[in-house]
Amino acid sequence: MAENNLNILNNIRVVLCDTSHNGNIGSAARAMKTMGITNLYLVSPKVLPDDHSIALSCNAREVVTNAKIVDSLDGALIDTTLAFATTSRRREFNQQLFTPKEITPEVFNAITRDEKIALVFGAEKTGLTIEQLEKCNRLLTIPGNPNYFSLNLANAVQIICYEIYANFNSDLSRLKDNNIEMAKFEDNQGIITHLDSILNKIDFYKNRNQDRTIRNLQHIINKANLVRDEVDLLRGILGKIEKNI
Amino acid sequence: MAENNLNILNNIRVVLCDTSHNGNIGSAARAMKTMGITNLYLVSPKVLPDDHSIALSCNAREVVTNAKIVDSLDGALIDTTLAFATTSRRREFNQQLFTPKEITPEVFNAITRDEKIALVFGAEKTGLTIEQLEKCNRLLTIPGNPNYFSLNLANAVQIICYEIYANFNSDLSRLKDNNIEMAKFEDNQGIITHLDSILNKIDFYKNRNQDRTIRNLQHIINKANLVRDEVDLLRGILGKIEKNI
Repeated sequence: MAENNLNILNNIRVVLCDTSHNGNIGSAARAMKTMGITNLYLVSPKVLPDDHSIALSCNAREVVTNAKIVDSLDGALIDTTLAFATTSRRREFNQQLFTPKEITPEVFNAITRDEKIALVFGAEKTGLTIEQLEKCNRLLTIPGNPNYFSLNLANAVQIICYEIYANFNSDLSRLKDNNIEMAKFEDNQGIITHLDSILNKIDFYKNRNQDRTIRNLQHIINKANLVRDEVDLLRGILGKIEKNI
Repeated sequence: MAENNLNILNNIRVVLCDTSHNGNIGSAARAMKTMGITNLYLVSPKVLPDDHSIALSCNAREVVTNAKIVDSLDGALIDTTLAFATTSRRREFNQQLFTPKEITPEVFNAITRDEKIALVFGAEKTGLTIEQLEKCNRLLTIPGNPNYFSLNLANAVQIICYEIYANFNSDLSRLKDNNIEMAKFEDNQGIITHLDSILNKIDFYKNRNQDRTIRNLQHIINKANLVRDEVDLLRGILGKIEKNI
Protein backbone atom coordinates (compact mmCIF):
# COMPACT_ATOMS: atom_id res chain seq x y z
CA MET A 1 0.00 0.00 0.00
CA ALA A 2 2.92 2.33 0.45
CA GLU A 3 3.13 3.43 -3.14
CA ASN A 4 4.91 6.69 -3.52
CA ASN A 5 4.14 7.41 -7.11
CA LEU A 6 1.28 9.91 -7.37
CA ASN A 7 0.87 9.04 -11.05
CA ILE A 8 -0.98 5.86 -10.24
CA LEU A 9 -3.83 8.07 -9.00
CA ASN A 10 -4.38 8.94 -12.66
CA ASN A 11 -5.93 5.50 -12.96
CA ILE A 12 -8.81 6.70 -10.81
CA ARG A 13 -11.76 8.60 -12.20
CA VAL A 14 -14.56 10.26 -10.28
CA VAL A 15 -17.92 9.92 -12.03
CA LEU A 16 -20.75 12.27 -11.06
CA CYS A 17 -24.13 11.26 -12.46
CA ASP A 18 -27.07 13.59 -13.07
CA THR A 19 -25.57 16.44 -11.02
CA SER A 20 -28.05 19.29 -10.43
CA HIS A 21 -25.88 22.08 -9.02
CA ASN A 22 -22.93 23.52 -10.88
CA GLY A 23 -21.37 24.57 -7.57
CA ASN A 24 -21.16 20.92 -6.56
CA ILE A 25 -19.14 20.15 -9.67
CA GLY A 26 -16.57 22.75 -8.62
CA SER A 27 -16.51 21.68 -4.97
CA ALA A 28 -16.09 18.04 -5.98
CA ALA A 29 -13.21 19.02 -8.29
CA ARG A 30 -11.51 20.83 -5.43
CA ALA A 31 -12.02 17.87 -3.09
CA MET A 32 -10.55 15.51 -5.70
CA LYS A 33 -7.51 17.60 -6.47
CA THR A 34 -6.58 18.01 -2.81
CA MET A 35 -6.25 14.23 -2.83
CA GLY A 36 -4.30 14.02 -6.10
CA ILE A 37 -7.22 12.74 -8.20
CA THR A 38 -7.99 14.78 -11.31
CA ASN A 39 -10.06 12.73 -13.78
CA LEU A 40 -13.66 13.86 -13.64
CA TYR A 41 -16.54 12.45 -15.68
CA LEU A 42 -19.97 14.04 -15.72
CA VAL A 43 -22.79 11.72 -16.76
CA SER A 44 -25.74 13.64 -18.19
CA PRO A 45 -25.34 16.61 -15.81
CA LYS A 46 -28.49 18.70 -15.34
CA VAL A 47 -26.27 21.77 -15.58
CA LEU A 48 -23.01 22.30 -17.41
CA PRO A 49 -19.92 23.45 -15.51
CA ASP A 50 -19.77 27.24 -15.52
CA ASP A 51 -18.00 30.16 -13.83
CA HIS A 52 -19.63 29.29 -10.51
CA SER A 53 -18.21 25.75 -10.74
CA ILE A 54 -14.78 27.16 -11.48
CA ALA A 55 -15.00 29.66 -8.61
CA LEU A 56 -15.86 26.88 -6.15
CA SER A 57 -13.14 24.64 -7.56
CA CYS A 58 -10.62 27.09 -6.13
CA ASN A 59 -7.46 26.31 -8.07
CA ALA A 60 -8.77 23.04 -9.42
CA ARG A 61 -10.04 24.86 -12.51
CA GLU A 62 -8.45 22.37 -14.92
CA VAL A 63 -10.25 19.45 -13.27
CA VAL A 64 -13.50 21.19 -14.17
CA THR A 65 -12.51 22.34 -17.64
CA ASN A 66 -11.06 18.92 -18.53
CA ALA A 67 -14.11 17.05 -17.25
CA LYS A 68 -15.47 14.58 -19.77
CA ILE A 69 -19.19 14.94 -20.32
CA VAL A 70 -20.96 11.75 -21.43
CA ASP A 71 -24.60 10.90 -21.79
CA SER A 72 -24.67 7.55 -20.03
CA LEU A 73 -22.80 5.81 -17.25
CA ASP A 74 -21.54 3.27 -19.81
CA GLY A 75 -19.52 6.05 -21.44
CA ALA A 76 -17.84 6.86 -18.14
CA LEU A 77 -17.04 3.24 -17.28
CA ILE A 78 -15.34 2.37 -20.57
CA ASP A 79 -11.93 0.85 -19.93
CA THR A 80 -12.44 0.41 -16.15
CA THR A 81 -11.98 -2.91 -14.40
CA LEU A 82 -13.77 -1.88 -11.22
CA ALA A 83 -16.54 0.61 -10.58
CA PHE A 84 -17.59 1.49 -7.04
CA ALA A 85 -21.15 2.79 -6.70
CA THR A 86 -21.72 5.00 -3.66
CA THR A 87 -24.99 4.94 -1.78
CA SER A 88 -26.49 6.13 1.47
CA ARG A 89 -29.69 4.11 0.87
CA ARG A 90 -28.21 1.13 2.63
CA ARG A 91 -31.29 -0.87 3.31
CA GLU A 92 -32.69 -0.71 -0.17
CA PHE A 93 -30.29 -3.03 -1.87
CA ASN A 94 -29.80 -6.65 -1.18
CA GLN A 95 -26.11 -6.41 -1.90
CA GLN A 96 -23.02 -6.51 0.23
CA LEU A 97 -21.95 -3.04 1.34
CA PHE A 98 -18.32 -1.98 1.55
CA THR A 99 -16.78 0.95 3.40
CA PRO A 100 -14.07 3.21 1.97
CA LYS A 101 -11.54 1.52 4.25
CA GLU A 102 -12.55 -1.89 2.96
CA ILE A 103 -12.25 -1.06 -0.72
CA THR A 104 -8.89 0.68 -0.46
CA PRO A 105 -6.75 -2.49 -0.73
CA GLU A 106 -8.69 -3.56 -3.82
CA VAL A 107 -8.35 -0.07 -5.32
CA PHE A 108 -4.59 -0.12 -4.80
CA ASN A 109 -4.29 -3.61 -6.14
CA ALA A 110 -5.99 -2.47 -9.36
CA ILE A 111 -4.33 0.89 -9.89
CA THR A 112 -0.81 -0.34 -9.19
CA ARG A 113 -1.39 -2.77 -12.05
CA ASP A 114 -2.43 0.20 -14.17
CA GLU A 115 -6.06 -0.77 -14.29
CA LYS A 116 -8.63 2.02 -14.42
CA ILE A 117 -11.19 2.27 -11.66
CA ALA A 118 -14.25 4.49 -11.20
CA LEU A 119 -15.80 6.04 -8.10
CA VAL A 120 -19.43 6.67 -9.03
CA PHE A 121 -21.74 9.18 -7.34
CA GLY A 122 -25.43 9.74 -8.00
CA ALA A 123 -27.68 12.78 -8.18
CA GLU A 124 -27.65 14.99 -5.08
CA LYS A 125 -31.19 14.26 -3.89
CA THR A 126 -31.85 10.80 -5.17
CA GLY A 127 -28.51 9.04 -5.50
CA LEU A 128 -27.74 6.46 -8.14
CA THR A 129 -30.58 4.73 -9.97
CA ILE A 130 -30.93 0.96 -9.79
CA GLU A 131 -29.81 0.77 -13.42
CA GLN A 132 -26.67 2.77 -12.62
CA LEU A 133 -25.91 0.67 -9.54
CA GLU A 134 -26.18 -2.50 -11.55
CA LYS A 135 -23.43 -1.38 -13.90
CA CYS A 136 -20.99 -1.21 -10.99
CA ASN A 137 -18.96 -3.98 -9.34
CA ARG A 138 -19.17 -2.94 -5.71
CA LEU A 139 -21.58 -1.03 -3.52
CA LEU A 140 -19.83 1.49 -1.33
CA THR A 141 -21.20 3.39 1.64
CA ILE A 142 -19.62 5.90 3.98
CA PRO A 143 -20.07 5.14 7.69
CA GLY A 144 -21.96 7.90 9.45
CA ASN A 145 -24.45 8.94 12.09
CA PRO A 146 -27.45 6.62 11.67
CA ASN A 147 -29.75 9.37 12.97
CA TYR A 148 -28.52 12.03 10.59
CA PHE A 149 -26.87 11.16 7.38
CA SER A 150 -26.77 14.23 5.22
CA LEU A 151 -23.40 14.16 3.55
CA ASN A 152 -23.19 16.55 0.66
CA LEU A 153 -21.85 15.40 -2.68
CA ALA A 154 -18.45 17.12 -2.49
CA ASN A 155 -17.91 15.85 1.05
CA ALA A 156 -18.67 12.28 0.01
CA VAL A 157 -16.15 12.69 -2.82
CA GLN A 158 -13.71 14.21 -0.31
CA ILE A 159 -13.92 11.32 2.14
CA ILE A 160 -13.47 8.55 -0.42
CA CYS A 161 -10.60 10.33 -2.19
CA TYR A 162 -9.00 11.03 1.20
CA GLU A 163 -9.24 7.39 2.23
CA ILE A 164 -7.46 6.32 -0.94
CA TYR A 165 -4.85 9.06 -0.77
CA ALA A 166 -4.14 8.59 2.93
CA ASN A 167 -3.03 5.02 2.35
CA PHE A 168 -0.08 6.44 0.45
CA ASN A 169 1.32 7.68 3.69
CA SER A 170 2.99 5.10 5.80
CA ASP A 171 1.77 5.60 9.33
CA LEU A 172 3.68 5.20 12.52
CA SER A 173 1.71 3.51 15.20
CA ARG A 174 2.04 4.93 18.62
CA LEU A 175 1.08 2.75 21.53
CA LYS A 176 -0.49 4.37 24.51
CA ASP A 177 -1.20 3.82 28.15
CA ASN A 178 -4.04 2.18 30.08
CA ASN A 179 -5.54 3.40 33.32
CA ILE A 180 -3.84 6.67 33.98
CA GLU A 181 -5.49 9.94 34.82
CA MET A 182 -4.25 12.47 32.32
CA ALA A 183 -3.45 16.09 33.11
CA LYS A 184 -6.04 18.59 31.98
CA PHE A 185 -5.44 21.83 30.16
CA GLU A 186 -5.75 23.84 33.37
CA ASP A 187 -3.25 21.57 35.14
CA ASN A 188 -0.66 22.31 32.47
CA GLN A 189 -1.47 26.03 32.58
CA GLY A 190 -1.03 25.92 36.36
CA ILE A 191 2.50 24.60 35.99
CA ILE A 192 3.36 27.34 33.50
CA THR A 193 1.94 30.08 35.72
CA HIS A 194 3.80 28.68 38.70
CA LEU A 195 7.05 28.47 36.75
CA ASP A 196 6.60 31.97 35.38
CA SER A 197 6.23 33.39 38.87
CA ILE A 198 9.40 31.62 40.01
CA LEU A 199 11.35 32.73 36.95
CA ASN A 200 10.25 36.29 37.67
CA LYS A 201 11.40 36.04 41.27
CA ILE A 202 14.82 34.73 40.32
CA ASP A 203 15.18 37.42 37.65
CA PHE A 204 15.50 34.83 34.94
CA TYR A 205 13.97 37.17 32.38
CA LYS A 206 16.54 39.86 32.84
CA ASN A 207 18.31 39.09 29.59
CA ARG A 208 15.67 36.95 27.96
CA ASN A 209 12.39 37.30 26.16
CA GLN A 210 9.73 36.31 28.68
CA ASP A 211 7.02 35.51 26.12
CA ARG A 212 9.26 33.27 24.09
CA THR A 213 10.51 31.51 27.18
CA ILE A 214 6.98 30.84 28.34
CA ARG A 215 5.93 29.62 24.91
CA ASN A 216 8.85 27.21 24.83
CA LEU A 217 8.06 25.92 28.28
CA GLN A 218 4.40 25.58 27.40
CA HIS A 219 5.34 23.59 24.34
CA ILE A 220 7.45 21.24 26.45
CA ILE A 221 4.64 20.69 28.91
CA ASN A 222 2.05 20.15 26.19
CA LYS A 223 4.19 17.64 24.35
CA ALA A 224 4.92 15.79 27.56
CA ASN A 225 1.33 14.61 27.79
CA LEU A 226 1.57 14.61 31.55
CA VAL A 227 -0.41 12.42 33.88
CA ARG A 228 -1.90 13.83 37.07
CA ASP A 229 0.80 12.32 39.28
CA GLU A 230 3.44 14.10 37.24
CA VAL A 231 1.58 17.39 37.59
CA ASP A 232 1.51 16.90 41.35
CA LEU A 233 5.20 16.07 41.36
CA LEU A 234 6.15 19.11 39.31
CA ARG A 235 3.94 21.42 41.36
CA GLY A 236 5.50 19.97 44.52
CA ILE A 237 8.97 20.66 43.19
CA LEU A 238 8.03 24.19 42.16
CA GLY A 239 6.47 24.88 45.57
CA LYS A 240 9.58 23.65 47.29
CA ILE A 241 11.80 25.77 45.06
CA GLU A 242 9.62 28.80 45.68
CA LYS A 243 10.03 28.47 49.43
CA ASN A 244 13.78 28.31 49.04
CA ILE A 245 14.41 31.37 46.92
CA MET B 1 -12.02 0.35 18.87
CA ALA B 2 -15.37 -1.25 18.17
CA GLU B 3 -17.31 0.77 20.72
CA ASN B 4 -21.01 0.64 20.07
CA ASN B 5 -22.07 3.56 22.17
CA LEU B 6 -22.46 6.73 20.11
CA ASN B 7 -22.55 8.72 23.35
CA ILE B 8 -18.82 8.57 23.74
CA LEU B 9 -18.61 10.90 20.75
CA ASN B 10 -20.05 13.56 23.08
CA ASN B 11 -16.57 13.67 24.61
CA ILE B 12 -15.31 15.23 21.39
CA ARG B 13 -15.57 18.94 20.68
CA VAL B 14 -14.78 20.73 17.44
CA VAL B 15 -13.20 24.12 18.03
CA LEU B 16 -13.19 26.66 15.19
CA CYS B 17 -10.94 29.66 15.81
CA ASP B 18 -11.32 33.10 14.23
CA THR B 19 -13.75 31.88 11.57
CA SER B 20 -14.42 34.52 8.89
CA HIS B 21 -17.37 33.09 6.96
CA ASN B 22 -20.67 32.26 8.61
CA GLY B 23 -21.36 29.73 5.84
CA ASN B 24 -18.35 27.73 6.97
CA ILE B 25 -19.78 27.48 10.48
CA GLY B 26 -22.91 25.86 9.06
CA SER B 27 -21.04 23.56 6.68
CA ALA B 28 -18.74 22.45 9.49
CA ALA B 29 -21.77 21.74 11.71
CA ARG B 30 -23.28 19.58 8.98
CA ALA B 31 -19.99 17.73 8.47
CA MET B 32 -19.73 17.09 12.23
CA LYS B 33 -23.27 15.86 12.69
CA THR B 34 -23.04 13.39 9.80
CA MET B 35 -20.28 11.80 11.87
CA GLY B 36 -22.15 11.91 15.17
CA ILE B 37 -20.16 14.80 16.67
CA THR B 38 -22.23 17.72 17.88
CA ASN B 39 -20.23 19.89 20.32
CA LEU B 40 -19.08 23.02 18.55
CA TYR B 41 -16.98 25.81 20.06
CA LEU B 42 -16.35 29.09 18.26
CA VAL B 43 -13.31 31.00 19.46
CA SER B 44 -13.59 34.73 18.72
CA PRO B 45 -15.43 34.24 15.42
CA LYS B 46 -15.18 37.20 13.01
CA VAL B 47 -18.86 36.69 12.27
CA LEU B 48 -21.60 35.27 14.44
CA PRO B 49 -23.64 32.28 13.26
CA ASP B 50 -26.68 33.52 11.34
CA ASP B 51 -29.42 32.31 9.01
CA HIS B 52 -26.87 31.58 6.31
CA SER B 53 -24.97 29.32 8.73
CA ILE B 54 -28.18 27.52 9.61
CA ALA B 55 -29.16 27.12 5.96
CA LEU B 56 -25.80 25.51 5.14
CA SER B 57 -25.96 23.32 8.24
CA CYS B 58 -28.85 21.49 6.57
CA ASN B 59 -30.56 19.75 9.47
CA ALA B 60 -27.68 20.31 11.88
CA ARG B 61 -29.30 23.55 13.04
CA GLU B 62 -28.96 22.67 16.74
CA VAL B 63 -25.20 22.16 16.38
CA VAL B 64 -25.02 25.79 15.24
CA THR B 65 -27.49 27.21 17.74
CA ASN B 66 -25.89 25.30 20.64
CA ALA B 67 -22.38 26.37 19.67
CA LYS B 68 -20.44 27.85 22.58
CA ILE B 69 -18.85 31.16 21.73
CA VAL B 70 -15.73 31.97 23.73
CA ASP B 71 -13.16 34.71 23.38
CA SER B 72 -9.99 32.67 23.68
CA LEU B 73 -8.85 29.16 22.91
CA ASP B 74 -8.36 28.59 26.64
CA GLY B 75 -12.10 28.82 27.13
CA ALA B 76 -12.65 26.10 24.55
CA LEU B 77 -10.01 23.77 25.96
CA ILE B 78 -11.21 23.76 29.56
CA ASP B 79 -11.64 20.23 30.84
CA THR B 80 -9.95 18.58 27.85
CA THR B 81 -7.09 16.13 28.24
CA LEU B 82 -6.02 16.28 24.62
CA ALA B 83 -6.24 19.02 22.05
CA PHE B 84 -5.33 18.34 18.43
CA ALA B 85 -4.30 21.38 16.42
CA THR B 86 -4.81 21.04 12.68
CA THR B 87 -2.42 22.60 10.23
CA SER B 88 -1.54 22.53 6.57
CA ARG B 89 1.63 24.60 7.16
CA ARG B 90 3.61 21.46 7.74
CA ARG B 91 7.09 22.79 7.33
CA GLU B 92 6.73 25.74 9.64
CA PHE B 93 6.72 23.96 12.94
CA ASN B 94 9.47 22.02 14.53
CA GLN B 95 7.02 19.52 15.94
CA GLN B 96 6.01 16.00 15.23
CA LEU B 97 3.08 15.83 12.82
CA PHE B 98 0.34 13.24 13.15
CA THR B 99 -2.22 12.10 10.60
CA PRO B 100 -5.91 11.53 11.34
CA LYS B 101 -5.33 7.77 11.14
CA GLU B 102 -2.52 8.03 13.64
CA ILE B 103 -4.47 10.00 16.23
CA THR B 104 -7.61 7.88 16.07
CA PRO B 105 -6.38 5.23 18.51
CA GLU B 106 -5.37 7.94 20.99
CA VAL B 107 -8.72 9.67 20.54
CA PHE B 108 -10.56 6.42 21.27
CA ASN B 109 -8.35 5.64 24.19
CA ALA B 110 -9.25 8.99 25.73
CA ILE B 111 -12.96 9.19 24.95
CA THR B 112 -13.73 5.64 26.03
CA ARG B 113 -12.31 6.66 29.42
CA ASP B 114 -14.68 9.65 29.32
CA GLU B 115 -11.97 12.22 28.83
CA LYS B 116 -12.80 15.28 26.75
CA ILE B 117 -10.79 15.96 23.63
CA ALA B 118 -10.73 18.91 21.22
CA LEU B 119 -10.18 19.08 17.47
CA VAL B 120 -8.95 22.61 16.83
CA PHE B 121 -9.14 24.42 13.48
CA GLY B 122 -7.73 27.85 12.64
CA ALA B 123 -8.91 30.76 10.54
CA GLU B 124 -9.72 29.92 6.91
CA LYS B 125 -6.86 31.80 5.27
CA THR B 126 -4.16 31.76 7.90
CA GLY B 127 -4.73 28.71 10.07
CA LEU B 128 -3.95 28.58 13.75
CA THR B 129 -1.59 31.12 15.27
CA ILE B 130 1.60 30.01 16.99
CA GLU B 131 0.03 30.90 20.33
CA GLN B 132 -3.01 28.73 19.58
CA LEU B 133 -0.86 25.82 18.41
CA GLU B 134 1.15 25.96 21.57
CA LYS B 135 -1.91 25.41 23.71
CA CYS B 136 -2.53 22.08 22.01
CA ASN B 137 -0.99 18.68 22.68
CA ARG B 138 -0.63 17.32 19.15
CA LEU B 139 -0.13 18.76 15.72
CA LEU B 140 -2.40 17.13 13.19
CA THR B 141 -2.23 17.31 9.41
CA ILE B 142 -4.38 15.74 6.72
CA PRO B 143 -2.46 13.88 4.02
CA GLY B 144 -3.02 15.40 0.61
CA ASN B 145 -1.64 16.36 -2.76
CA PRO B 146 1.67 18.10 -2.08
CA ASN B 147 1.22 20.20 -5.22
CA TYR B 148 -2.25 21.43 -4.37
CA PHE B 149 -3.45 21.50 -0.86
CA SER B 150 -6.53 23.63 -0.69
CA LEU B 151 -8.84 21.83 1.67
CA ASN B 152 -11.69 24.02 2.80
CA LEU B 153 -12.52 24.29 6.48
CA ALA B 154 -15.68 22.16 6.45
CA ASN B 155 -13.93 19.46 4.43
CA ALA B 156 -11.05 19.31 6.88
CA VAL B 157 -13.60 18.96 9.69
CA GLN B 158 -15.38 16.31 7.61
CA ILE B 159 -12.28 14.18 7.08
CA ILE B 160 -11.15 14.17 10.69
CA CYS B 161 -14.64 13.49 12.05
CA TYR B 162 -15.06 10.76 9.44
CA GLU B 163 -11.79 9.12 10.42
CA ILE B 164 -12.91 8.99 14.04
CA TYR B 165 -16.44 7.84 13.27
CA ALA B 166 -15.37 5.22 10.75
CA ASN B 167 -13.44 3.39 13.42
CA PHE B 168 -16.72 2.95 15.22
CA ASN B 169 -18.70 1.53 12.43
CA SER B 170 -21.44 0.24 14.68
CA ASP B 171 -24.39 1.05 12.44
CA LEU B 172 -22.74 -0.38 9.38
CA SER B 173 -21.68 -3.62 10.98
CA ARG B 174 -25.20 -4.06 12.29
CA LEU B 175 -26.57 -3.55 8.81
CA LYS B 176 -24.09 -5.97 7.42
CA ASP B 177 -25.01 -8.60 9.96
CA ASN B 178 -28.74 -8.24 9.60
CA ASN B 179 -29.47 -7.51 6.01
CA ILE B 180 -27.64 -9.95 3.88
CA GLU B 181 -27.12 -13.63 4.10
CA MET B 182 -23.98 -14.48 2.22
CA ALA B 183 -23.60 -17.72 0.30
CA LYS B 184 -21.59 -20.39 2.06
CA PHE B 185 -18.93 -22.64 0.63
CA GLU B 186 -21.39 -25.47 0.15
CA ASP B 187 -23.86 -23.18 -1.67
CA ASN B 188 -21.18 -22.31 -4.19
CA GLN B 189 -20.15 -25.95 -4.47
CA GLY B 190 -23.79 -26.85 -5.11
CA ILE B 191 -23.89 -24.51 -8.07
CA ILE B 192 -20.70 -25.98 -9.48
CA THR B 193 -21.92 -29.58 -9.07
CA HIS B 194 -25.20 -28.67 -10.69
CA LEU B 195 -23.42 -26.92 -13.57
CA ASP B 196 -21.05 -29.84 -14.00
CA SER B 197 -23.90 -32.28 -14.33
CA ILE B 198 -25.53 -30.10 -16.98
CA LEU B 199 -22.28 -29.65 -18.89
CA ASN B 200 -21.88 -33.42 -18.87
CA LYS B 201 -25.36 -33.88 -20.24
CA ILE B 202 -24.84 -31.45 -23.09
CA ASP B 203 -21.50 -33.03 -23.92
CA PHE B 204 -19.63 -29.77 -23.28
CA TYR B 205 -16.50 -31.62 -22.17
CA LYS B 206 -16.11 -33.53 -25.37
CA ASN B 207 -13.15 -31.46 -26.55
CA ARG B 208 -12.29 -29.73 -23.29
CA ASN B 209 -10.55 -30.45 -20.04
CA GLN B 210 -13.30 -30.99 -17.49
CA ASP B 211 -11.16 -30.31 -14.42
CA ARG B 212 -9.83 -27.04 -15.75
CA THR B 213 -13.30 -25.94 -16.84
CA ILE B 214 -14.69 -26.68 -13.39
CA ARG B 215 -11.81 -24.87 -11.68
CA ASN B 216 -12.42 -21.82 -13.86
CA LEU B 217 -16.13 -21.82 -13.12
CA GLN B 218 -15.49 -22.31 -9.44
CA HIS B 219 -13.16 -19.34 -9.46
CA ILE B 220 -15.80 -17.19 -11.14
CA ILE B 221 -18.44 -18.19 -8.57
CA ASN B 222 -16.06 -17.64 -5.68
CA LYS B 223 -15.10 -14.19 -6.88
CA ALA B 224 -18.75 -13.23 -7.28
CA ASN B 225 -19.26 -13.27 -3.53
CA LEU B 226 -22.86 -14.43 -3.92
CA VAL B 227 -25.69 -13.88 -1.47
CA ARG B 228 -28.19 -16.65 -0.70
CA ASP B 229 -30.90 -15.16 -2.91
CA GLU B 230 -28.52 -15.22 -5.83
CA VAL B 231 -27.64 -18.84 -5.15
CA ASP B 232 -31.34 -19.67 -5.21
CA LEU B 233 -31.77 -17.77 -8.45
CA LEU B 234 -28.86 -19.55 -10.13
CA ARG B 235 -30.00 -22.94 -8.90
CA GLY B 236 -33.47 -22.18 -10.19
CA ILE B 237 -32.08 -21.31 -13.61
CA LEU B 238 -29.92 -24.43 -13.68
CA GLY B 239 -32.88 -26.59 -12.67
CA LYS B 240 -34.99 -25.10 -15.43
CA ILE B 241 -32.23 -25.63 -17.98
CA GLU B 242 -31.82 -29.20 -16.85
CA LYS B 243 -35.46 -29.96 -17.46
CA ASN B 244 -35.21 -28.54 -20.94
CA ILE B 245 -32.23 -30.45 -22.24
